[in-house]
Amino acid sequence: MNYQRTFNFSAGPAMMPEAVLEEIRDEMLNYRGSGMCVMEMSHRSAVFQTIVDEAEQDLRDLMGIPDNYKVLFIQGGATLQFSMIPMNLMKNGKAVYIETGAWSKKAIGEAKKVGEVIVAASSKDKNYSYIPDCSDLDIPEDTDYVYICENETIHGLTYQTLPNTKGHVLVSDQSSMFLSKPCNVSDYGMIYAGVQKNVGPAGMVVVIIREDLIRDDLENLPIYMQYKTHADNGSMYNTPNCWAIYCCGKVFKYLKSIGGLEAMNKLNEEKAKVMYDFLDNSKMFTGTVAKECRSLMNIPFVTESKELDAEVVAATKAAGYDNLKGHKSVGGLRASIYNAMPKEGVEALVDFLRKFEENYGK
Amino acid sequence: MNYQRTFNFSAGPAMMPEAVLEEIRDEMLNYRGSGMCVMEMSHRSAVFQTIVDEAEQDLRDLMGIPDNYKVLFIQGGATLQFSMIPMNLMKNGKAVYIETGAWSKKAIGEAKKVGEVIVAASSKDKNYSYIPDCSDLDIPEDTDYVYICENETIHGLTYQTLPNTKGHVLVSDQSSMFLSKPCNVSDYGMIYAGVQKNVGPAGMVVVIIREDLIRDDLENLPIYMQYKTHADNGSMYNTPNCWAIYCCGKVFKYLKSIGGLEAMNKLNEEKAKVMYDFLDNSKMFTGTVAKECRSLMNIPFVTESKELDAEVVAATKAAGYDNLKGHKSVGGLRASIYNAMPKEGVEALVDFLRKFEENYGK
Repeated sequence: MNYQRTFNFSAGPAMMPEAVLEEIRDEMLNYRGSGMCVMEMSHRSAVFQTIVDEAEQDLRDLMGIPDNYKVLFIQGGATLQFSMIPMNLMKNGKAVYIETGAWSKKAIGEAKKVGEVIVAASSKDKNYSYIPDCSDLDIPEDTDYVYICENETIHGLTYQTLPNTKGHVLVSDQSSMFLSKPCNVSDYGMIYAGVQKNVGPAGMVVVIIREDLIRDDLENLPIYMQYKTHADNGSMYNTPNCWAIYCCGKVFKYLKSIGGLEAMNKLNEEKAKVMYDFLDNSKMFTGTVAKECRSLMNIPFVTESKELDAEVVAATKAAGYDNLKGHKSVGGLRASIYNAMPKEGVEALVDFLRKFEENYGK
Repeated sequence: MNYQRTFNFSAGPAMMPEAVLEEIRDEMLNYRGSGMCVMEMSHRSAVFQTIVDEAEQDLRDLMGIPDNYKVLFIQGGATLQFSMIPMNLMKNGKAVYIETGAWSKKAIGEAKKVGEVIVAASSKDKNYSYIPDCSDLDIPEDTDYVYICENETIHGLTYQTLPNTKGHVLVSDQSSMFLSKPCNVSDYGMIYAGVQKNVGPAGMVVVIIREDLIRDDLENLPIYMQYKTHADNGSMYNTPNCWAIYCCGKVFKYLKSIGGLEAMNKLNEEKAKVMYDFLDNSKMFTGTVAKECRSLMNIPFVTESKELDAEVVAATKAAGYDNLKGHKSVGGLRASIYNAMPKEGVEALVDFLRKFEENYGK
């Protein structure tokens, strides 16, 4: 390394593997003898089709995605999915949502525009600091699906056990935990994730959807809003975010090269332990989430006052640890330590915070 | 140059200025001392906000966009705009569309799902080979807007004169001609363009919309589908396609550096003249569009047979001139010569085609 890379604790977009960025840099003017940058390629060309096909196959390999699931690359972020999901999946006009933080709340808001939303469990009562018990939810028989945000980026919560959907389709927003650990895709009807947190550049969502959920009777919906449009055309009914497909494809290959999602999970658990062990032993800093619901990816914490929070944020930034300010809706601090954050980054941050605490007021 | 760059005649995504790609390459691991790639930056960070602000300002400078127009960066391509436009702009539920090729036809299809569409003029009768007379259209008084695709990418048509809208709002799809020549923004209520043809990487549309057209009574629409959402949040209600904003911003600066849209237009006219002069004098190749409607950007042409068309496509590809195959819906050949195609590229192609013709059958 002849350049200075920052330890970036952003909640997304966020760090990408350095080896991947180097490859992308080196292919910028001439991708593998094509004489073009990937940004310049026709999405209908053979060279780009190979990029898409490999990206999909590598993702299928990583997650073990069964053949009866489609993999789609769609623009518009999780925000567009908040609308597409009820518009496509509400056959009976009814769905159950679990409210565990800012992102599930936004999803609920959009779904209510489309049909009946039953919030069967919520942790709003304690400012989204825990995951409610979802082992015996009250789910009407004609519910179309049960929706969760499996890792709440802002509030730092994650599910240890998936809800008991009592045979209903489970839909999960995995944006801030996508590919952080092994995932049994068959447990879900649909998984989706904005890639800008744990994979690549912003501007694309990966949708993994069971084929029987893709309806062909929705021709009155905007054509971009129908999953069928994307499924029938290999995600290329119109020009996709080609660059994001290319970059994410490289990250998929990188993850395979380091041992896949088992190896990634092991590293993520080690990284999170460094952070949580520190918080549990600190007198100055306190984690805000119930221990059994703690996210491996997003770790919110606070000091005794807003003033001290701000002081710490400023000190970390000055020391080269960026984006530790908590989300404006929550305050405090938050360390997002996604797949690409090296363990040394977490250790260095903890070391800095420990010294800050030791020296404070001296 | 120590690498071989292809003359790429793709209809989009398409060539980008080499100087821009080199800058992007050099900033890949560490953007201006930030210690991050732009793909890794929080969209809420000061460093990224500067990138967005400069991109918008440079575009405003280039086009002379008046202060009462908003500039928005939205995902989902022109395809999502085909739906967003009628959903946002049809107050009376009625709009006039001009049908001049594949893209206006698709826009019409989506608008019909939302309200009444009056096709006031069409060139479908002659396979979209001309722009119909739009000087005295039959436009109902309560029409919400008049819609055109100002340059038809597939059929190679462009408007020499904007339609007489008789005081109604004009909405224009400029995707395949965006920034190719000066534009009087005040003539339009809304201009939009997918950036992947004439500017940067796929996955973003630039929307330039007069503020009074942005409605605040559409809260039942999906939140992503409301122009108000994007306008009220500086295009960052949710994470935008940050990479595309960054790359397009660089192209905007590049265009300013070479003399702006006047200079660009002059070069584009020179490039197109090289191609059209050749076609007009060739016995083997024929342009398919009425002379007065010819696009400066997309130049479709044919030989006497499909077999010969295919032979020419193969020969050009082998010689390093890529993506000359006409769109599958039209056939023949098509040379897309957007802003970033150097004049030498067009001259080299014409030279190749001239020799091909001279030697054919010998």
